[in-house]
Amino acid sequence: MASSSSTAALAAPIDATALGDALAALRAAPPLVQCLTNVVVSQWTANVLLAVGAAPAMVDNPHEAGGFASISSAVLVNLGTPFDDTAAAMFAAVASAGEAGVPWVLDPVAAGVMKWRTTLAHDLISANAPSIIRGNASEILALAGGAGGKGVDSVHAAEDAVEAAKSLARQLGTVVAVSGAIDHLTDGDRVLRLENGHPLMTQVTGVGCALGALMAAFAGVVKDPLLAAAAATAVLTVAADEAASHSRGPGSFAVGLLDELSTLTAHHVIERVRIS
Amino acid sequence: MASSSSTAALAAPIDATALGDALAALRAAPPLVQCLTNVVVSQWTANVLLAVGAAPAMVDNPHEAGGFASISSAVLVNLGTPFDDTAAAMFAAVASAGEAGVPWVLDPVAAGVMKWRTTLAHDLISANAPSIIRGNASEILALAGGAGGKGVDSVHAAEDAVEAAKSLARQLGTVVAVSGAIDHLTDGDRVLRLENGHPLMTQVTGVGCALGALMAAFAGVVKDPLLAAAAATAVLTVAADEAASHSRGPGSFAVGLLDELSTLTAHHVIERVRIS
Amino acid sequence: MASSSSTAALAAPIDATALGDALAALRAAPPLVQCLTNVVVSQWTANVLLAVGAAPAMVDNPHEAGGFASISSAVLVNLGTPFDDTAAAMFAAVASAGEAGVPWVLDPVAAGVMKWRTTLAHDLISANAPSIIRGNASEILALAGGAGGKGVDSVHAAEDAVEAAKSLARQLGTVVAVSGAIDHLTDGDRVLRLENGHPLMTQVTGVGCALGALMAAFAGVVKDPLLAAAAATAVLTVAADEAASHSRGPGSFAVGLLDELSTLTAHHVIERVRIS
Repeated sequence: MASSSSTAALAAPIDATALGDALAALRAAPPLVQCLTNVVVSQWTANVLLAVGAAPAMVDNPHEAGGFASISSAVLVNLGTPFDDTAAAMFAAVASAGEAGVPWVLDPVAAGVMKWRTTLAHDLISANAPSIIRGNASEILALAGGAGGKGVDSVHAAEDAVEAAKSLARQLGTVVAVSGAIDHLTDGDRVLRLENGHPLMTQVTGVGCALGALMAAFAGVVKDPLLAAAAATAVLTVAADEAASHSRGPGSFAVGLLDELSTLTAHHVIERVRIS
Repeated sequence: MASSSSTAALAAPIDATALGDALAALRAAPPLVQCLTNVVVSQWTANVLLAVGAAPAMVDNPHEAGGFASISSAVLVNLGTPFDDTAAAMFAAVASAGEAGVPWVLDPVAAGVMKWRTTLAHDLISANAPSIIRGNASEILALAGGAGGKGVDSVHAAEDAVEAAKSLARQLGTVVAVSGAIDHLTDGDRVLRLENGHPLMTQVTGVGCALGALMAAFAGVVKDPLLAAAAATAVLTVAADEAASHSRGPGSFAVGLLDELSTLTAHHVIERVRIS
Repeated sequence: MASSSSTAALAAPIDATALGDALAALRAAPPLVQCLTNVVVSQWTANVLLAVGAAPAMVDNPHEAGGFASISSAVLVNLGTPFDDTAAAMFAAVASAGEAGVPWVLDPVAAGVMKWRTTLAHDLISANAPSIIRGNASEILALAGGAGGKGVDSVHAAEDAVEAAKSLARQLGTVVAVSGAIDHLTDGDRVLRLENGHPLMTQVTGVGCALGALMAAFAGVVKDPLLAAAAATAVLTVAADEAASHSRGPGSFAVGLLDELSTLTAHHVIERVRIS
């Protein structure tokens, strides 16, 4: 496992141009993204991935999840509605991804609020450290050993979790993305701040889950997981800004977001993303 | 258990103003609504709850459902697609809600049509009588001991089930809501009729299921379950009237309904609801 | 089992008028369609069936699936996200449908890519040959004994699978529908080509799955399975053409498709379908 410092030294700078280039790369060679996600957002997640140009495959039964992970470009594991059989499938997929060198993304929905899934998250991480962990501040704080949230929404601002995220990232050799009004992404060394996005994103279920799925898609396309996480964040939030400007509420916003993701260009991303 | 007569004597009158006030109360203190619902409508249900201002949490696995119920504002149990593991989760949630004094709502989808779920509905009711039972006329007639429907749609008009609903409500000390072109709600003593709504509501899957979820949300906010059921019905059907007027068909109606739910005000409800 | 030749001899010609008449027949007597489908598309499938005028019922647990199949007009089995319990329900439904003379449709999603579901598809077919098998070219080739695809999308054009489809249809006495830019439908003897549709159909998850569901709906209305498959294809693709012309991307296309399905008339189908 390369230390995050050496990764930083080797990696190209992550600026607006790099994010736009990542979108162009995804469109040029659509990644096959295996999703083991929750039943609430499975359709939405597939539609977000299709809209951006990726190829989703919702393979989450224990008989097939391991085998499929080895032929996927990347794997998403989202803990929104885990059951015994889907949890078994997650372990199979994560182990197989590890053997095949396939990157995987963990979205630890409501970690810290409920004990079973918190243990599940830790056990999956122990089996094979993910390339990226994406959560809200409460979830990241909980994984890092702190207090959890209430329900599935964060009770902490993203800023509150940045130090915990850096520590978790260093400890695991992974990228940690803390979603919020301002998104903070870190590999333990570098910290990126992305400031696009709109409050309507919190009024549609699964927008955060879709961000995790997009991170998996980009992790299947670019080598640096921090770039993958940043490109996904930029693409989703820039599209959301545009969709929000045409929306009457959360229903038309969700529809517009899919439309914008499908027409978004690398040029738009480069022009509009606010990254520091 | 208070008799329904004494409840009626103590309760404030349920008029248009009370319904509008309930919406304002929900927005002021968003209830955390645990949903154990069917896989067909889980995304839609979460989006309806988010649009109106509530906080949905789809926690329906046997490991976590009981614990989560005790910290929820209210629990929804919908029998649309039950399985052994989600049924076990329902029992855990309902028992835990009973111990913690958390209200719960039963939506007995297709009760009377299929034996397993009809027994499941009766067993859940026996374990802990729900605050509200919401169904179409065929489902309510079936639970009250009469004939069932065909498929998941009612073959009876709501009017046909009013006496059965009153009897069931008195017997269980619960509120029974019979959905239809005109909605009839009763606690066994009082009977409310709400006359808003549009035929497009029957052309989108899960609009009835969303009504059950909204009843749970309001049951987490106001004390009188009849007021909760009426406020949910008013909010959904007034928003539906508005959405229908802008729709080209069921696709745009569903989108518009989410938009209208998010912008609906207490003032709109008071002005437009037709209650008697 | 009637040979396909004799079926062809007895059947009325399948032309544009026959397809429009089938839509009118469906609207006049809505079929009850039991769907055992994947969790990704269950809401979408129900909404497509409701929009066209059918009555969907998502009954896919092992306790109830068999009993419900015997009272359904038709049964859909879609292998998108199979689990042990839903697979058990599929066997129960298919066996019961066979005994009751209820037609069923198989949508073998990703057959050939994964071994477990490919075996599942073959075992279901052995238990009771379906009236219609609908898949993309890779899935049909895999079922007929050839090579499979990659992920859930076809890597073959529909034309490549026509001979395999004819052979499979003759062998099983079923209708085989190969979806693609041009849809090819065969009962082993007759081959129909339908040329409506739009690339946006591939950018929304579950449009192919919805086509399988519509085939089940029409199989519950008309006797000739080839006519049922063709009517479903015509209705979906003609509506898609119309929806695509008003869309800004996949989000608004999906919404528009539901709107168009609900307003589509027999006259529109007859006027616009391109069948040969």
